[in-house]
Amino acid sequence: MLNLVKSLRDTTDGKIVMLVADGIGGLARKPGGLTELETAKTPNLDALAKIGVQGLSTPIKPGITPGSGPGHLGLFGYDPLRFIIGRGALEAAGIGFAMTDNDVAIRCNFCTTDAAGNITDRRAGRIPSEESAAVVQKLKVIKIPGVEIFVEPVKEHRFVVVFRGEGLGDSVADTDPQKTGVPILAPALHDGVKCAASEKTVKIAKEFHAQAVKILADEPKANNHTMRGFARKPHMPSYEEIYGLKSACIAVYPMYKGLASFAGMDIIGKAATLAEEIDVLEKEWKNYDFFFVHFKYTDSRGEDGQFDEKVKMIEEFDTIIPRVTALKPACLVVTGDHSTPAVMASHSFHPVPTLLVSDLARTDAAEEYSERAAVRGGLGQFEAMYIMPMAMGHAGKLGKFGA
Amino acid sequence: MLNLVKSLRDTTDGKIVMLVADGIGGLARKPGGLTELETAKTPNLDALAKIGVQGLSTPIKPGITPGSGPGHLGLFGYDPLRFIIGRGALEAAGIGFAMTDNDVAIRCNFCTTDAAGNITDRRAGRIPSEESAAVVQKLKVIKIPGVEIFVEPVKEHRFVVVFRGEGLGDSVADTDPQKTGVPILAPALHDGVKCAASEKTVKIAKEFHAQAVKILADEPKANNHTMRGFARKPHMPSYEEIYGLKSACIAVYPMYKGLASFAGMDIIGKAATLAEEIDVLEKEWKNYDFFFVHFKYTDSRGEDGQFDEKVKMIEEFDTIIPRVTALKPACLVVTGDHSTPAVMASHSFHPVPTLLVSDLARTDAAEEYSERAAVRGGLGQFEAMYIMPMAMGHAGKLGKFGA
Repeated sequence: MLNLVKSLRDTTDGKIVMLVADGIGGLARKPGGLTELETAKTPNLDALAKIGVQGLSTPIKPGITPGSGPGHLGLFGYDPLRFIIGRGALEAAGIGFAMTDNDVAIRCNFCTTDAAGNITDRRAGRIPSEESAAVVQKLKVIKIPGVEIFVEPVKEHRFVVVFRGEGLGDSVADTDPQKTGVPILAPALHDGVKCAASEKTVKIAKEFHAQAVKILADEPKANNHTMRGFARKPHMPSYEEIYGLKSACIAVYPMYKGLASFAGMDIIGKAATLAEEIDVLEKEWKNYDFFFVHFKYTDSRGEDGQFDEKVKMIEEFDTIIPRVTALKPACLVVTGDHSTPAVMASHSFHPVPTLLVSDLARTDAAEEYSERAAVRGGLGQFEAMYIMPMAMGHAGKLGKFGA
Repeated sequence: MLNLVKSLRDTTDGKIVMLVADGIGGLARKPGGLTELETAKTPNLDALAKIGVQGLSTPIKPGITPGSGPGHLGLFGYDPLRFIIGRGALEAAGIGFAMTDNDVAIRCNFCTTDAAGNITDRRAGRIPSEESAAVVQKLKVIKIPGVEIFVEPVKEHRFVVVFRGEGLGDSVADTDPQKTGVPILAPALHDGVKCAASEKTVKIAKEFHAQAVKILADEPKANNHTMRGFARKPHMPSYEEIYGLKSACIAVYPMYKGLASFAGMDIIGKAATLAEEIDVLEKEWKNYDFFFVHFKYTDSRGEDGQFDEKVKMIEEFDTIIPRVTALKPACLVVTGDHSTPAVMASHSFHPVPTLLVSDLARTDAAEEYSERAAVRGGLGQFEAMYIMPMAMGHAGKLGKFGA
């Protein structure tokens, strides 16, 4: 599909905006009732529904609940079952660390070991983030010849280590034995793997751990650490390569910036609110062909199980719509990376109402943007990875296939 | 897809029930009229439609009419274009013969040959089943060293032979020349195939036929036989392996028990009617996580071309619904393996109304369970192989894909 799109793309002036209200799809409190989106007053989105075309996107496959990583890869047009983001790389993305092709990222946990070297607490008592960050700071002195090392705090006992150097492989097994009373495992290749590049990483990981243990020796809780999810940057063609679009990400949370950076988007602006994100959009309008704008709080309130609060977040999301349409994108996409029903207080497998607005939209009968309207929408039901080709088509950016 | 489901499955308490009304989908007598299902009074199914979510499942691919084998494989979540049940294995399944991994099953036809050995009747005058069974009985004396042999009657001139032994292949061509006036072909490998395991089977088949011809010499009609569809048991992961579900099949007809046994389900209970099948369901409720309950007569009356009788069978099917819902499955699936419109008196390619009932169902606008309601249902249109992943999701039995 990516090759097909790449082979057909046209360069035109119009811009594409993808507004992602994270976890926007929902569920009614009771069967037959209204979802969060159906409950919310969304006059601006409903006005768009009347001139646009709607449908339901399945993030991965029917019945499958996506995490944020694969959920966004699908929105960006990548087959999320083919392009897998390793856990270390996702953790790096989560703190907004910009990985290069020479990097191996590792999720690390501080832990506590006893005098015999056996683990007594796999999470070092979940030490507070500030305390943990101070310990991470100490590890920054670690030097290993031939490799650049980054050590960055995440949250509580978690931190990220990135090795940057030529020819580093990531077929390295976790050093966390997943239980207490036993020693941390030495870094080693995955069972049955032979890989010189990954052996190089194993060597570096051993040296890193040896130096870290000395530095941490006097820590009361975080006197040791485990390493998990060794991962290189996912290897995927960039937005520029596929779509020929100069692309930008506007997001508040580091995770989404990291995911967009895997797709080669520029991360632009500093925004702490949705309104500020739209400020960035307006300011940078002339500089890009594609904008991914991420709104987090629909998902957050869903995850918290707060139906009414999620409704309010959707209503806030609705208020910025006129500022976006005033910019006259050739195609505006409104969607989510997955559903987060408040009644489930978690991501879910339910398909996501997805709306395309464009002069080329074949308008359906929808009077509003909602799950119910999307069921009967003109786009039908489709996998999320087809949203980008549809957006490209609706923006007049795809030529004819065959004569 | 199976690997994906396998990697995400969660163990939870809730149970899944799949009620399969064979061939339930239909056609109106005249374009624009009501189908059998739409004609039937189904208050219980309609009540479920109001709280559940509906859609149309395509058994194989659009326009493709399935046999019972691939139809059910799709319902069980196997890609029916990938997991092929050889004809011999299907025939064995059809009589409820439990194949092992060491078996090769063969569909045999009694036929009539003349003194010169040329076929004069490929079906031995379609001798009645009782007569045929008596002849089959005679063949049971055949012994071949190193292999266990089963000879079982099917219907009229048809019977099944199973060779059980180590290392038997099934790349063996049919011995039926498909015309009269010529001799039966000798067992041989498929053209161009080299396979020591299948050569072993060829040798055994030759010996079997040689012994059979002697035994049958004095039969007036069934004095010879052909062999077709040599097939090993289909190689597929079991329900337990894929879904982690302890699974049971409740069916009246042997064919469906055989198909379920390929998926590794336990075949439970003895039932001659739908009501008795539900007796078994109630009795065994605590012992399994998944129940496949098969109702045959919707298909039978469709195949007979009896519209009104099929309507009655659907109404009978409707009456048992309250007994099933009283058991409170985490997810109830109501579907069919294909459509069998009475006006066609055969299986058809039409998609099948499929209803999921669960606390996690995102209810659609359907007021009834029917073809028309399913067109506008929240599940959209999908291949039957996605029903199981959807059921797993709706039963809360699938974890998140990626972080």
